[in-house]
Amino acid sequence: MVKFAILGCGRIGRMHARNIQTHPRAELAAVYDVAPQAADEVAAQLGARVLSSVDEALGDPGIDAIFIASSTDTHVDLITRSAKAGKAVLCEKPIDLDIGRVETCWREIGPLDPLVMIGFNRRFDPSFKALRDRVQAGELGRLEQVVITSRDPAPPPPAYVRGSGGLFRDMTIHDFDMARYLAGDIVEVQAMGSNLIDPRIGEQGDIDGAMVTLRAASGALVHINNSRRCAYGYDQRVEAFGETGMLQVHNRRPTTVEAWGATATQARDTVLNFFIERYTEAYMAEIDHFVDCVETGAKPLASFQDGHEALRIADAALESLRTGATVRLDR
Amino acid sequence: MVKFAILGCGRIGRMHARNIQTHPRAELAAVYDVAPQAADEVAAQLGARVLSSVDEALGDPGIDAIFIASSTDTHVDLITRSAKAGKAVLCEKPIDLDIGRVETCWREIGPLDPLVMIGFNRRFDPSFKALRDRVQAGELGRLEQVVITSRDPAPPPPAYVRGSGGLFRDMTIHDFDMARYLAGDIVEVQAMGSNLIDPRIGEQGDIDGAMVTLRAASGALVHINNSRRCAYGYDQRVEAFGETGMLQVHNRRPTTVEAWGATATQARDTVLNFFIERYTEAYMAEIDHFVDCVETGAKPLASFQDGHEALRIADAALESLRTGATVRLDR
Amino acid sequence: MVKFAILGCGRIGRMHARNIQTHPRAELAAVYDVAPQAADEVAAQLGARVLSSVDEALGDPGIDAIFIASSTDTHVDLITRSAKAGKAVLCEKPIDLDIGRVETCWREIGPLDPLVMIGFNRRFDPSFKALRDRVQAGELGRLEQVVITSRDPAPPPPAYVRGSGGLFRDMTIHDFDMARYLAGDIVEVQAMGSNLIDPRIGEQGDIDGAMVTLRAASGALVHINNSRRCAYGYDQRVEAFGETGMLQVHNRRPTTVEAWGATATQARDTVLNFFIERYTEAYMAEIDHFVDCVETGAKPLASFQDGHEALRIADAALESLRTGATVRLDR
Amino acid sequence: MVKFAILGCGRIGRMHARNIQTHPRAELAAVYDVAPQAADEVAAQLGARVLSSVDEALGDPGIDAIFIASSTDTHVDLITRSAKAGKAVLCEKPIDLDIGRVETCWREIGPLDPLVMIGFNRRFDPSFKALRDRVQAGELGRLEQVVITSRDPAPPPPAYVRGSGGLFRDMTIHDFDMARYLAGDIVEVQAMGSNLIDPRIGEQGDIDGAMVTLRAASGALVHINNSRRCAYGYDQRVEAFGETGMLQVHNRRPTTVEAWGATATQARDTVLNFFIERYTEAYMAEIDHFVDCVETGAKPLASFQDGHEALRIADAALESLRTGATVRLDR
Repeated sequence: MVKFAILGCGRIGRMHARNIQTHPRAELAAVYDVAPQAADEVAAQLGARVLSSVDEALGDPGIDAIFIASSTDTHVDLITRSAKAGKAVLCEKPIDLDIGRVETCWREIGPLDPLVMIGFNRRFDPSFKALRDRVQAGELGRLEQVVITSRDPAPPPPAYVRGSGGLFRDMTIHDFDMARYLAGDIVEVQAMGSNLIDPRIGEQGDIDGAMVTLRAASGALVHINNSRRCAYGYDQRVEAFGETGMLQVHNRRPTTVEAWGATATQARDTVLNFFIERYTEAYMAEIDHFVDCVETGAKPLASFQDGHEALRIADAALESLRTGATVRLDR
Repeated sequence: MVKFAILGCGRIGRMHARNIQTHPRAELAAVYDVAPQAADEVAAQLGARVLSSVDEALGDPGIDAIFIASSTDTHVDLITRSAKAGKAVLCEKPIDLDIGRVETCWREIGPLDPLVMIGFNRRFDPSFKALRDRVQAGELGRLEQVVITSRDPAPPPPAYVRGSGGLFRDMTIHDFDMARYLAGDIVEVQAMGSNLIDPRIGEQGDIDGAMVTLRAASGALVHINNSRRCAYGYDQRVEAFGETGMLQVHNRRPTTVEAWGATATQARDTVLNFFIERYTEAYMAEIDHFVDCVETGAKPLASFQDGHEALRIADAALESLRTGATVRLDR
Repeated sequence: MVKFAILGCGRIGRMHARNIQTHPRAELAAVYDVAPQAADEVAAQLGARVLSSVDEALGDPGIDAIFIASSTDTHVDLITRSAKAGKAVLCEKPIDLDIGRVETCWREIGPLDPLVMIGFNRRFDPSFKALRDRVQAGELGRLEQVVITSRDPAPPPPAYVRGSGGLFRDMTIHDFDMARYLAGDIVEVQAMGSNLIDPRIGEQGDIDGAMVTLRAASGALVHINNSRRCAYGYDQRVEAFGETGMLQVHNRRPTTVEAWGATATQARDTVLNFFIERYTEAYMAEIDHFVDCVETGAKPLASFQDGHEALRIADAALESLRTGATVRLDR
Repeated sequence: MVKFAILGCGRIGRMHARNIQTHPRAELAAVYDVAPQAADEVAAQLGARVLSSVDEALGDPGIDAIFIASSTDTHVDLITRSAKAGKAVLCEKPIDLDIGRVETCWREIGPLDPLVMIGFNRRFDPSFKALRDRVQAGELGRLEQVVITSRDPAPPPPAYVRGSGGLFRDMTIHDFDMARYLAGDIVEVQAMGSNLIDPRIGEQGDIDGAMVTLRAASGALVHINNSRRCAYGYDQRVEAFGETGMLQVHNRRPTTVEAWGATATQARDTVLNFFIERYTEAYMAEIDHFVDCVETGAKPLASFQDGHEALRIADAALESLRTGATVRLDR
């Protein structure tokens, strides 16, 4: 049994708490939140202990793993302290919005060779995982092109946008990670952005639509398109194209029903709208993989370095957006 | 060059006339219709000679083939005279509504070993043909089940129904032939009918919906469903199921466009609505096959016997409808 | 909290035990099996009490509901005793293989107005449920035709077949219930069967493939096709056709991946192969609905009468198979 | 009747000759080729007159329209002479590989207000046309993103590549035109290229894969991906995304057959492999539209200016490829 303390009992922390609780080899031992009431609620519902401080978790030899689900600005501090306390760490993305802080963090904890996994949930989605496994097994021969479509159902409120680090660090970060998951390390970045959806997002210097092109060290080209609004749901697709064919991951819907009528045929449900529904299996598989890593010492499929690299690409995309130039990433 | 005379210049005769004219090895030599004006129009448009009588065609050594596209009650007479005149014959389905007349016809012309092909156009549809070829090549192992869906866009007028011979002889006849095309000879027939669409059809003793089950001599079971009305177009599908898998033929649409919106996704066009559009390629391939048969003496893919067998099944279905019993067909 | 005792700890009993345990308003209180070891295992895994006899459950005022997951021949006895003991009952299908015993059972317990639900899991599948809700909401206008495809991945061992009651009572029973779920009460039955898959099934007087046609009191026609073997997985589809269109439920697959290569395009995974995977959500929704009924006194969506009617249709289908005649069901 | 002379009797000239001949309001009057034998063959097959020189066509008052299907380097000269001779012109794309020559051409003929249409056949494809009409009718609200996938089945021989003007002017030119067709004028271009398929293409300074991002004056972003090789056929897709939804055009296949087996389900044919098959209807509709323009004086849907603009974008893409910078197009 891997015993977890969860730090942060917001929406996403609560979802992970439930997933930990139903995992056969994991136990939700304790929860913490800066707002004690949030922690109390989760503890009552799921039968866990409430912690009065982070240190209580870190000092408790009965706790094996720390799940960091608190706000982004606390991640680096909590990762550092948890790693130093010898705990395994699973931290929600992004590590931080500031690449310097991310690098400092690793300089400090790297020598300890800690188990730190970053919550890039999409890597654990059964469809994306199957696509990647088949690409790696050589089904496409050499991988030449990847097309990633990633559109959110609705734009976040302007207040959220302000502290988000911008579209590339907040939303595209998942797609940058998907690009690396499928095509490996990235060496060149081109980006174009638009603000066609909510003028208040533009007023804060951010964009709400984007098209990015990446070149991988392998030679493969990757296209990412993003939109902060999508009328038909949470659009999450990937296409991998290579020497001998193509593999696509399509969207998921609540039912398999098709409607045929006088104006349209084969009409299906709108796409699952909410990331927690779309990635239900992925979030459970993420916990499962992390528990495996804790038990066996295996390297996690989504490492601290993966979190760092995704942020580097986001920063490069931002620079390309500003300058219009193709930005090279040193390797 | 195979030189054709067309007897009957209605809608279907005109379509065939155009197809013959554009075929590289066929020539539309002459046309005839009981209404001279209809023949004049086609002749003027397509540059053919107008015949003043059927005999003129039959006596003309420059005519190789007679295309019979006149009303059903004239088919047997025209087939007989054409075969006796030594012409190759392509006749629209059905041969006749009366099985006795069909059998008499063959007794008369059979000894001449004539080339008589029946216009079961669906046998020449590229998708149905591909499905059949793959079944015969063994892709499914033993064929065990066939499901045929065949629904017309809209019911015919009551006046048409009166002379049609009823749903089974008029509409299902195509599906009975498809059943034999895929599963071979039929030995048992069960039928259930309904009159849910137009009460005037029921008043004439006919049905406007049906479900039929057939057993083939091979052991395969076949289901046919029919409706005289279909809101989304002319529904024409086939599913063949066997030991090692399944092959399906799906509907055809004018474009490949899919629409995704706030209430439905992947919505496609309605299905091609009109049999002449749906089976455009099939009608052209039918002519092409017939021209081949005339040139090479090969047996046609849709023979007089096929026309006879389809009608026998229709009659058996009608008997099953009346008696509720499973009807056996002697072989 | 609705407190359950499960009678029968085989594969299906264990699955239900887990579902009960994870349901927020249900509790797995106790388990029983004629093989004590099976009960011990489930109890140990899921933290429930082991019962030494059925009576222990029936006499325990702390038990609200009895889940009957034991062998078919015990169902009637256990339903009767449970109902008399005032317990709510959820019983796996079929109630019994003998219609006389089913009717006797109801005569005995009917006057008690017991809550007895039958485990027709497919009624709770999100896709079938959505299709039915949309049909009932009038999306198709009048319902005219239903086509049910239901093919098992692989035939059961001959020993199983012997005690199964035959294909119609064992397998098609689900489809007969689906027919009633969608089209209402059935008044006529025609059936054709085949034995193309395993000769040992035929030797026991049973069939391993079938096509059945039903007429509903509403006038709608229903086609069911069954096969005991299906190369591409557990094939479970439904098509509902009516005045204004069609609704279809399609198969489910583990991922949404499509493969495009030199020999085929858009190729998808095989279909979920195992009924417990295919109907995961359905089994959970079934428990949820039953808990609702226990709490609120609502009538269950799958009643004792539904179990009785499905068996009547199965018997009628068997008679039609034997006699070749259309069998009428009195109403 | 619009009377055509075709200049150039290669593969594409021959196809257009046949299409003109079967068009009810067009007539193939005369053909010319620098290789007299090619012209003789077409003339014999289709019953047209052979011209001994281009001037013979231009001086013949019985010729209404000149179809230029000769090699690219002759286009400008032939357009200029034909326009000056008062003929309507339909010229295969591209106008020329040199933008300077294209602009000189227009300076010379523009004042004559000639009817010059460029053969951007994809604009006439029923699916692309339907998508565009629906976008323009407002079905998506504001158009925000376009994704164009365009992959050839196999790379051309190196000798062809040498004179082709490079991937952008030879192949992507169609996609640049599609971008304008859907999103209007283009103001910014970013391009990345790769040479992963045939090293001999790279040796000639060309690329065989590309990803391009465009910004339209309307604000919409457009992604184009190209490959000179595609294992599953000629991949031609478009996705248009906007405020209220998405419209996609999918690939076309020879049949609608789907195969279900032990390793894959819903497997379809490979995609139509050859541009002449893929765009059969488009080429016929192109002729039809041009005939309309000749008869009514209407502006063609694909004008000289459209040819000019597509080439400007190609040149800008080439510059972006060389410099890594985003290239602005003055308007």
